Amino acid sequence: MPIVVQKYGGTSVGDVDRMKRVADRVARSHRGGNQTVVVVSAMGKTTDDLVSMAARISDHPPERELDILLTSGERISMSLLAIALAERGVPAKSFTGSQAGIITDAVHGKARIVDITPGRVQGALEEGNVVIVAGFQGVSQDTKDITTLGRGGSDTTAVALAAALGADVCEIYTDVDGVFTADPRIVSNARKLDFVSYEEMLEMSAQGAGVLQVRSVEFGRNHGVRIHVRSSFSYTDGTWVGPQEDKMEDAIISGVAHDTSEAKVTVQGVPDTPGVAARLFGALGETNVNIDMIVQNVSLDGRTDISFTLPRGDQAKALAMLEPLVTEIGAEGIHVDDDIAKVSLVGAGMKTHPGVAARMFGALSAAGVNIEMISTSTIRVSVVVSKTQVEQAVLAVHDAFNLGEDQVLEEGN
Amino acid sequence: MPIVVQKYGGTSVGDVDRMKRVADRVARSHRGGNQTVVVVSAMGKTTDDLVSMAARISDHPPERELDILLTSGERISMSLLAIALAERGVPAKSFTGSQAGIITDAVHGKARIVDITPGRVQGALEEGNVVIVAGFQGVSQDTKDITTLGRGGSDTTAVALAAALGADVCEIYTDVDGVFTADPRIVSNARKLDFVSYEEMLEMSAQGAGVLQVRSVEFGRNHGVRIHVRSSFSYTDGTWVGPQEDKMEDAIISGVAHDTSEAKVTVQGVPDTPGVAARLFGALGETNVNIDMIVQNVSLDGRTDISFTLPRGDQAKALAMLEPLVTEIGAEGIHVDDDIAKVSLVGAGMKTHPGVAARMFGALSAAGVNIEMISTSTIRVSVVVSKTQVEQAVLAVHDAFNLGEDQVLEEGN
Repeated sequence: MPIVVQKYGGTSVGDVDRMKRVADRVARSHRGGNQTVVVVSAMGKTTDDLVSMAARISDHPPERELDILLTSGERISMSLLAIALAERGVPAKSFTGSQAGIITDAVHGKARIVDITPGRVQGALEEGNVVIVAGFQGVSQDTKDITTLGRGGSDTTAVALAAALGADVCEIYTDVDGVFTADPRIVSNARKLDFVSYEEMLEMSAQGAGVLQVRSVEFGRNHGVRIHVRSSFSYTDGTWVGPQEDKMEDAIISGVAHDTSEAKVTVQGVPDTPGVAARLFGALGETNVNIDMIVQNVSLDGRTDISFTLPRGDQAKALAMLEPLVTEIGAEGIHVDDDIAKVSLVGAGMKTHPGVAARMFGALSAAGVNIEMISTSTIRVSVVVSKTQVEQAVLAVHDAFNLGEDQVLEEGN
Repeated sequence: MPIVVQKYGGTSVGDVDRMKRVADRVARSHRGGNQTVVVVSAMGKTTDDLVSMAARISDHPPERELDILLTSGERISMSLLAIALAERGVPAKSFTGSQAGIITDAVHGKARIVDITPGRVQGALEEGNVVIVAGFQGVSQDTKDITTLGRGGSDTTAVALAAALGADVCEIYTDVDGVFTADPRIVSNARKLDFVSYEEMLEMSAQGAGVLQVRSVEFGRNHGVRIHVRSSFSYTDGTWVGPQEDKMEDAIISGVAHDTSEAKVTVQGVPDTPGVAARLFGALGETNVNIDMIVQNVSLDGRTDISFTLPRGDQAKALAMLEPLVTEIGAEGIHVDDDIAKVSLVGAGMKTHPGVAARMFGALSAAGVNIEMISTSTIRVSVVVSKTQVEQAVLAVHDAFNLGEDQVLEEGN
């Protein structure tokens, strides 16, 4: 019997009526003869509400307790969905992350899955149940405390469970039809992609295409899980994510991603001596802040500026760590710019087609967009621009590579 | 170091500001040198809101799933309280019922505690933490599923933990100053009792004095836990609940309790043959419905009426079980009256003082209150009256036994 893992995000289970529609869809999978495992997020803004209650109590809530608090949201949705399925005559059992055997490390708020022991899930499936698992959460191997996997962690729960169960497919249901060449809210003729490779999806997720959490894509790639990103509001096919295939070679560019959730930090006047960067980023690493782009400007007079981007939510933590360090290493100061946006061009074909970066920079220049930082990988070029220019930048790049619905894909170089 | 268990109900932690006040009080206990364990209920109407979401999805939600749903509420309050304590510089760790070792049977919605293995709680106390435990919930010994202990179950969690930890006192914080001779909302001169015996408290709780869950009192009595019922809004002493003491012998009557949460079911025209009552109540017992008063009227012509009261919430379940049975045993029909109230007079001295019941019935009669059912124990007399007359009845009985603030207690007979 095929095993299907389905993941429904917070919008898909946003209220009781949407929960019922999800139940209809799950029931259909069950009746279609699939062993069905459903991973759910918290309903709508539940998690935000919980975070804001905690913020009213403390500016620095202990992370262990914050994790316990936040996992309540999935607990509510999973049991409501089980109730909705029972109402439809479909036997269903819900399990918390801990009960489902999602074993993690002890890094509260950003735990990583270290093992999955899905014995109870498999038992309940074999009894003929739909199994519902709370996304976003697990239990720490060492402390037995409840942990969370970070925002979007339910995607990782789903893909990891799919890997552990040997599922035929992991369906990620969301409020859009799939993965697009750019954000359709900005680019009106953005095109839905039928397929993207793990590598491209990784880059796109990392660069702000919010449709899949980066770690879930990594997990999928490492364990060969076929992922199907699709809409919970329709039955049409979405975007498949899988290994790079030969026939895909010709498609140079998959799409344009953008991200307005980061801030840029510049440490000014850093003595240009060996080991300074290592100390800076070593210290930041210990705080579990995810540093994204790093750029070091040309050294003048034995001093240099080091800039990096990081999630705005981690800004306070990073600054608290950096401020004493800046004095210690003899730097001149710190400057923060949280009015930035990152625009990235992603495509697996890019590495064998020179000139992509140049064409992108040309398009931005023609659109009057100033580039503040640049960073590249083999299948991606990212630039940081002013947040006020993000839409112009996305449109210009999308257009320069003819990614739109009504345009013919052409070799770009 | 003294061990204190404190339990805060839903009103005491009703919103973020009240939660902060509870944190102040807990911090005070901790700084006063107590090893402090705090049991919390869900905030305000959280549990009701969860129940109503489930009701919008299904009329008959599976009890396993309903239990998982409902336990979310305590999870939210326990972590918020831990955060509030940390904000006050008090180290705190929160644990779910399962993590705290509250082991129950598998009767969802009404599970009974079968064992407590508080190893993690003790460990965290020894590390110097305040320990916060989610009330109302446990984990089933056999199925490892999450269970709930029924409405008011947090009281039982607190008393059971106090017993398991050998606590010096179990403080039950509530929104009233203690246990009163009658509901102060009805009887303006109702008096706060400084002390009641376990037995009296049991009867008063069972008869509708909502201040303590019956099972928590049983647990306290069986394990000799000293319980202090007091207000979370003041620092004045409340009511102590403990073993009957010699000096208490003179107080005949403790108070008047009333309960408007029940319905009366009458099975009409039951063949007056042996074994019929056993079949009726045996069947009801299997559904885990708590039958309260049972009265069988005088048999006429080989047929009799059997009436009993039960929580209105269990009415549907009881009727579903009874309706086929009524035909089977050859009874004539079922009549349900959910417009009733129960008024009870409770006092440990009653058993050695004849005439208490007569005086109560006389007072009711003088107040024009019609008695529909009567049931007695050694320390209690209960009557069922029309719900419209409950206030008159409580006032009349309270007055007849001179229980009020400005009255002198006198020997009643």
